[in-house]
Amino acid sequence: MVKQFKRRIFLVLEAKEHKQTLSRVCEYFLIFLILSNTVAVCIESIEQIFETYEVWFIIFNRFSVGVFTLEYILRVWSCTTLEKYRHPIWGRLRYMLTPLAIIDLIAFLPFYLPFTNADLRSIKLFGLTRFLQLLKLGRYSRGIKILGQVIRLRQEELILTLNIVIFLLISSATLIYFVEHEAQPDQFPNIPAAMWWGIITLTTVGYGDVYPITPLGKILGGILALLGIGLFALPAGLIASGFTEVITSNKKFPQTPDPRVCPHCGKPLDQLPNNQTHVRN
Amino acid sequence: MVKQFKRRIFLVLEAKEHKQTLSRVCEYFLIFLILSNTVAVCIESIEQIFETYEVWFIIFNRFSVGVFTLEYILRVWSCTTLEKYRHPIWGRLRYMLTPLAIIDLIAFLPFYLPFTNADLRSIKLFGLTRFLQLLKLGRYSRGIKILGQVIRLRQEELILTLNIVIFLLISSATLIYFVEHEAQPDQFPNIPAAMWWGIITLTTVGYGDVYPITPLGKILGGILALLGIGLFALPAGLIASGFTEVITSNKKFPQTPDPRVCPHCGKPLDQLPNNQTHVRN
Amino acid sequence: MVKQFKRRIFLVLEAKEHKQTLSRVCEYFLIFLILSNTVAVCIESIEQIFETYEVWFIIFNRFSVGVFTLEYILRVWSCTTLEKYRHPIWGRLRYMLTPLAIIDLIAFLPFYLPFTNADLRSIKLFGLTRFLQLLKLGRYSRGIKILGQVIRLRQEELILTLNIVIFLLISSATLIYFVEHEAQPDQFPNIPAAMWWGIITLTTVGYGDVYPITPLGKILGGILALLGIGLFALPAGLIASGFTEVITSNKKFPQTPDPRVCPHCGKPLDQLPNNQTHVRN
Amino acid sequence: MVKQFKRRIFLVLEAKEHKQTLSRVCEYFLIFLILSNTVAVCIESIEQIFETYEVWFIIFNRFSVGVFTLEYILRVWSCTTLEKYRHPIWGRLRYMLTPLAIIDLIAFLPFYLPFTNADLRSIKLFGLTRFLQLLKLGRYSRGIKILGQVIRLRQEELILTLNIVIFLLISSATLIYFVEHEAQPDQFPNIPAAMWWGIITLTTVGYGDVYPITPLGKILGGILALLGIGLFALPAGLIASGFTEVITSNKKFPQTPDPRVCPHCGKPLDQLPNNQTHVRN
Repeated sequence: MVKQFKRRIFLVLEAKEHKQTLSRVCEYFLIFLILSNTVAVCIESIEQIFETYEVWFIIFNRFSVGVFTLEYILRVWSCTTLEKYRHPIWGRLRYMLTPLAIIDLIAFLPFYLPFTNADLRSIKLFGLTRFLQLLKLGRYSRGIKILGQVIRLRQEELILTLNIVIFLLISSATLIYFVEHEAQPDQFPNIPAAMWWGIITLTTVGYGDVYPITPLGKILGGILALLGIGLFALPAGLIASGFTEVITSNKKFPQTPDPRVCPHCGKPLDQLPNNQTHVRN
Repeated sequence: MVKQFKRRIFLVLEAKEHKQTLSRVCEYFLIFLILSNTVAVCIESIEQIFETYEVWFIIFNRFSVGVFTLEYILRVWSCTTLEKYRHPIWGRLRYMLTPLAIIDLIAFLPFYLPFTNADLRSIKLFGLTRFLQLLKLGRYSRGIKILGQVIRLRQEELILTLNIVIFLLISSATLIYFVEHEAQPDQFPNIPAAMWWGIITLTTVGYGDVYPITPLGKILGGILALLGIGLFALPAGLIASGFTEVITSNKKFPQTPDPRVCPHCGKPLDQLPNNQTHVRN
Repeated sequence: MVKQFKRRIFLVLEAKEHKQTLSRVCEYFLIFLILSNTVAVCIESIEQIFETYEVWFIIFNRFSVGVFTLEYILRVWSCTTLEKYRHPIWGRLRYMLTPLAIIDLIAFLPFYLPFTNADLRSIKLFGLTRFLQLLKLGRYSRGIKILGQVIRLRQEELILTLNIVIFLLISSATLIYFVEHEAQPDQFPNIPAAMWWGIITLTTVGYGDVYPITPLGKILGGILALLGIGLFALPAGLIASGFTEVITSNKKFPQTPDPRVCPHCGKPLDQLPNNQTHVRN
Repeated sequence: MVKQFKRRIFLVLEAKEHKQTLSRVCEYFLIFLILSNTVAVCIESIEQIFETYEVWFIIFNRFSVGVFTLEYILRVWSCTTLEKYRHPIWGRLRYMLTPLAIIDLIAFLPFYLPFTNADLRSIKLFGLTRFLQLLKLGRYSRGIKILGQVIRLRQEELILTLNIVIFLLISSATLIYFVEHEAQPDQFPNIPAAMWWGIITLTTVGYGDVYPITPLGKILGGILALLGIGLFALPAGLIASGFTEVITSNKKFPQTPDPRVCPHCGKPLDQLPNNQTHVRN
């Protein structure tokens, strides 16, 4: 009986393929709660709004923490439904160490620490924590999943281009430092400070807080800016082309659940004694 | 007789396929009037020019409003020529609720409101209204039509990348807020304000009105700028590639009017009793 | 005899296919002279250098003007060698109205005007004229020729995207003007001034001399910046892809002179009585 | 015996194909030392850190110089193992004139000059020298090797587009100088100074230290900014597409050592009397 109920809970929380009504309601409610919390963190930071509606923000926060705690407990409790987290202790521990479970935990844990009170500083500290809740969306957002696929697909090229970018950044910063340090000791006090100039110039952001003023520095800066738009655009181009590639291949081969394989654990169904009940119940 | 005349008016205003001389003259006159109004709105905003030529601007404005009113009335009157707006009342009402008809209406309606006089404030208010006339060009401009096709073609990918862009923007703003708020409470007073920094940095515009000054903020800003050029360029890349795709496919398969289908209502001609006269007359 | 000599001059100046030693020497000398003049215009503008070496700059200028005048006269005199400029008067007049011949003329003509003296103002005025000499390089530079081919190839798309760019620019400027004019009457005095903000923001240059300060203006500016990078990059993308296309097709099908066609006038050789002498001599 | 040892040393230092343990350890140690030196140059430039840990920086510097000297001597001594540097004097001299060997030499030579003492100025001077050590990484970094391949592959197109870029830059600077010089003689004192404006605008960096203020200058600047993003992005696009091309072709045809050819000198093995010992020993 309990096992049946646990399995039900598990399917509601995790089994996206089944798309039962309850599972969908639960998913949309959690997405809505995460987005509401993100919006709350944003507008809480506006001091006069926070001071006026402080009580409501705290109530909403406690409600969210309650829901996320319940969600976490239910996930950990029901994860043993999966074959790979079968063991009641070690299975659950292993589940708790998966990245998504860790994010889930960090998103609400600090609010149970003893020093939690409603003063502005601690709320701010928690603001950063609550912001991590956004990462929980990774479980639901297709965009972020595809981005993950793209990064994995282009992994090698991204590392290669990042090497070039870092190489160019260090070279630019060192050269501009030796050229401009004498003329502007306040703006280019040392090489790490010159790197700020380098990255803001080579990404073509160009705030204008630091820029070369000597003729040699301007020539160097101009050449580096010209080089920069070529080389700093490499990772951008790789991600963009990878993105199109992943979406196109997803359209061609949509991820249909393979009928011969269990959608939960990935094991072939015909090797299991009873393919209806191999999810332990 | 009246029906013949109405059908004539309708064909002059809408039927682009026929390309009669009158239809073309009418089209070019309306395009010219819209463009003139746009130019007028632009140079009216220069105070000394407006004060010198105030009378002429008002005359030109009244003339344009008159023409646009007439155009609107004729369109609504003659729209019953089309099979789908056949009913004299409900058909016309449905036509009046199409986006293009609403834009047509808004573009001249405010000038008939009672408080309309020639003082600068109301002219300005109407300037914004008259600017909407630019959208009327959507009926004629091929560029904007293709842009519409591109957005529909890449709809899914654009929503996905916009998700990523918004996710990165909120994350950047929240992180920079927690890092820089202490050091620059005036520049980063709250997270929505930090989003202004975020969007101006991640699009690489970089005005330089707000930028991080703490070492941690600079490191964070540098990493975000590097990420930003990769991810914020995604929608740009998708639109650019979609644009090329749409133009190429338009060149290969130019939209020839299908001879077996009525160019006005889209119904097959052979199912109609008399294919010359199925447009009600 | 004279005709033989004229034909010789013509081939030296124009006939790039023959690549005789004299033709090459002449070509390289003219390219060198144009580039020297460009460099001279640049460093003349540095006042202390100009004052010190004024005499040399004037001598070099007069020498160049002399050479360019001679080149122009020889080109006009010998152009009758070509079949299509055959007529001694009308042919030469038609040659003088080709774009390259006009540029040639403008590049030296002002220096023969009576008020020419060596004061700084007139030199500056001529600086702009002499800068036009750079355009003479169009006759020799392969890069600029390919750019011309790309623009012709993508003509239609470029006009379409320029329409979109101008539409977005006018819309942005009008909207930001109505939003920011009240708050910053000095920065956004009228819509044409707001267009400066628009183009500097939408190209992501972002000098930071003008930027929105009201919350509504910042939201609008942020959305426009995001849109801008997508739409303002369209012409860039079209030119880039066209460039690659043109270079690739040039590599595959190098422009070999068609042996059945006269390399000068493009007429089929076998329709001429004597294909060696159809260039009139 | 010595020859055997020399060959061993050579293989440890150069022969990347063999990937013996010692060769790998040696390679990783040298990469680590170069990166440490780069980091040291960076943080040495922070004055308070340099003053506090001056002794350690000098010790680390001397140790690195010692290692790089030893590495250089061993490379020069053992290079005669290669067939093409066979001659004990001329072979070694020719090896010493290869780019990588010259970089190796410059990276440590200045520290043996008599005036070397530990004052800040000379350390700084050497900072620039030591920065050249980064170029030694070119021997190991795959990213930089691929970048080199890309530049060679796209050589012709890059030169063509650089021509266009330089042409546009000179034109922009000349035009803006004639338009803005009167209004802002301090910001646009001469054409070379206007080029700084040109390159910072056309790369869309846009610091905001120099910008046009006259209406004509703003119109010109706006048009140039719009052109600039199209043309200045050409080299960037060429490098990006070349990068993808090189990586894709490397994936398809990985550089497997041809078994019939000596991995050191490239000569066919079967033409050598004893393919085990043709490396002279």
